[in-house]
Amino acid sequence: MQTLKVNLGERSYPIHIGADTLVRIGDFLAQAGLRGKVAVVTNPTVAQLYLDTVGNALEQAGYEVTPLLIPDGEAFKTVESLQSIYDGLIAGRFERNSSVLALGGGVVGDLAGFAAATYLRGVPYVQVPTTLLAQVDSSVGGKTGVNHADGKNLIGAFYQPKLVVIDVSVLRTLPRRELIAGVAEVIKYGIIADPSLFSLLEQSIGSLIQLNEDLLMETVAISCAIKARIVELDEREDSYRAVLNFGHTIGHALEAVTDYTRFLHGEAVGVGMVKAAVLSAHLGFCDSESLHRMVHLIEKAGLPSEIPGNISMNELMRGMQVDKKSAGGKIKFVMCEGIGKTCFHWLTPSEILTGLGVERSS
Amino acid sequence: MQTLKVNLGERSYPIHIGADTLVRIGDFLAQAGLRGKVAVVTNPTVAQLYLDTVGNALEQAGYEVTPLLIPDGEAFKTVESLQSIYDGLIAGRFERNSSVLALGGGVVGDLAGFAAATYLRGVPYVQVPTTLLAQVDSSVGGKTGVNHADGKNLIGAFYQPKLVVIDVSVLRTLPRRELIAGVAEVIKYGIIADPSLFSLLEQSIGSLIQLNEDLLMETVAISCAIKARIVELDEREDSYRAVLNFGHTIGHALEAVTDYTRFLHGEAVGVGMVKAAVLSAHLGFCDSESLHRMVHLIEKAGLPSEIPGNISMNELMRGMQVDKKSAGGKIKFVMCEGIGKTCFHWLTPSEILTGLGVERSS
Repeated sequence: MQTLKVNLGERSYPIHIGADTLVRIGDFLAQAGLRGKVAVVTNPTVAQLYLDTVGNALEQAGYEVTPLLIPDGEAFKTVESLQSIYDGLIAGRFERNSSVLALGGGVVGDLAGFAAATYLRGVPYVQVPTTLLAQVDSSVGGKTGVNHADGKNLIGAFYQPKLVVIDVSVLRTLPRRELIAGVAEVIKYGIIADPSLFSLLEQSIGSLIQLNEDLLMETVAISCAIKARIVELDEREDSYRAVLNFGHTIGHALEAVTDYTRFLHGEAVGVGMVKAAVLSAHLGFCDSESLHRMVHLIEKAGLPSEIPGNISMNELMRGMQVDKKSAGGKIKFVMCEGIGKTCFHWLTPSEILTGLGVERSS
Repeated sequence: MQTLKVNLGERSYPIHIGADTLVRIGDFLAQAGLRGKVAVVTNPTVAQLYLDTVGNALEQAGYEVTPLLIPDGEAFKTVESLQSIYDGLIAGRFERNSSVLALGGGVVGDLAGFAAATYLRGVPYVQVPTTLLAQVDSSVGGKTGVNHADGKNLIGAFYQPKLVVIDVSVLRTLPRRELIAGVAEVIKYGIIADPSLFSLLEQSIGSLIQLNEDLLMETVAISCAIKARIVELDEREDSYRAVLNFGHTIGHALEAVTDYTRFLHGEAVGVGMVKAAVLSAHLGFCDSESLHRMVHLIEKAGLPSEIPGNISMNELMRGMQVDKKSAGGKIKFVMCEGIGKTCFHWLTPSEILTGLGVERSS
């Protein structure tokens, strides 16, 4: 087992990464100084698999556990689900020193984190991510929130957890499609920050998808460490943290115009990264060999790499403009300057589409 | 005009206090480094009186103004009103460097502040309080939030404004009942922190209610300075900031059990302060002369001092238990130890009612 630390002054916290760590969750909470009531926010799918394990481990460590279930899926990352969590916390008489524990993927983590950020103006919360995507990305860094009909994560807060507990063994029960979607974010870390992680993935992406546990622990830990360093530099995304959005501008828009039902987040990011790489090469930021390696690895992982033909480009442009990173009609786009290196470049949605060789539909 | 500063490191901000300051609002925003779009959140009553003045002043300073109206009253401090603000911000394509300006009383300020805290995970906001209560209390200190059917401010965030602009001249159009409700919080500052403010009020409360502008500016500035010092010591109410809740435990419960329709907040606090003073004397924290002075000043201000006979004490107890300051069934109660001095004392709701000589109804 490995423990990393996210260094954010009084908001610092540990990330524990290992195999079969769920049974030790009570000890980790106790180490972090948490006590009293714990609301375990999860969904029916994850509850069936891991709620007993987590609930028993917490109760053995002396915690009073209240499960709060929300429906499964990005379509339920809404203000309504948030309200149901608030209702559960109020009904359970949760107080300011009570904790919220997110047991699930990114949707559960973002919702539970935002509920914790805003219930009684903030109670402690713990991230226990059960998808690869949540383990390497959304559980670390304190971004919480819900979607709005007009865009993803438009409502939210920066609010750091008290600890993150990652158990790579739970990935055994993750559907293969979701596992691969999570690999998209691991590939992203290679592209934006770590050529040796990228090479490791080129060599062994097959083993990773076959759930080699040592390889999972290694790549999850490298990914979390990269994310932690970026968050430490720019917690509230005033500038540099936006580098994490490589592939996400088009990715988010794709998810939005398909009502969050067609693509998993990581799949949309797969398409978005390919398009960002193409654009980077087109605008002269990136050499063609790097472009080729990126597209090849993304496709080798089994991720989609094309925008479906029946998607309206006008809608996609509108989706990009409502993105949080837009300002004055231009979008802060993350460009790749070869594997492991990025820069920012402001583009209008139409410059983006032109750069991709897409005709604007009328 | 006076300018105070709330010192919170990178979250520090100025409070400008004067007469006829609304016309200068654009300059104040510019001084604070704000630019671009400004959403003016207000209600129809305040809009009719001051939206033109504020809107013109902002436009003259180069800001693009979008008014967002919410219904008037505490009953509308809800998630639904919040949603309507989000919708307005999204429709107006508000971006991360756009600002939200709260023009109104505590309801507008709390709602607009929470919307600003959570839209795109946080945009800048400005407090322009138009009630005495908001000027001396809710506009300073970064508490934002909405009510839940089960209790006041159960959903919210600590999020500091970029500046506060107080114009005491607008109190001319404030209904007398609301003005007096605001005086309750000014009296509170005297009780918890400043015997000389308390004496000043004993001498001149009549002139204050007659809107003597110099006296208003003086008492508002003293009140804001006290609030600022307390917030600086304990921004997130981990401990000492709770002193500001003198009179509020019973006050909040009274508001909740009457569905926020019977009492103005300050009126409920008037009753709550009298009861807190009685309890303080009963438990030996406070001498009888101080008790007499407190009750006398609160009544002289025209504030209510009794719990209405038709209110169920059981309901009132439940209202106190759901309060954010409760833990383990006990409530952190602010006791008065004579004018200008307080301490905390943990009590169960039934100890509170027994101390007040109230029979528990079955």
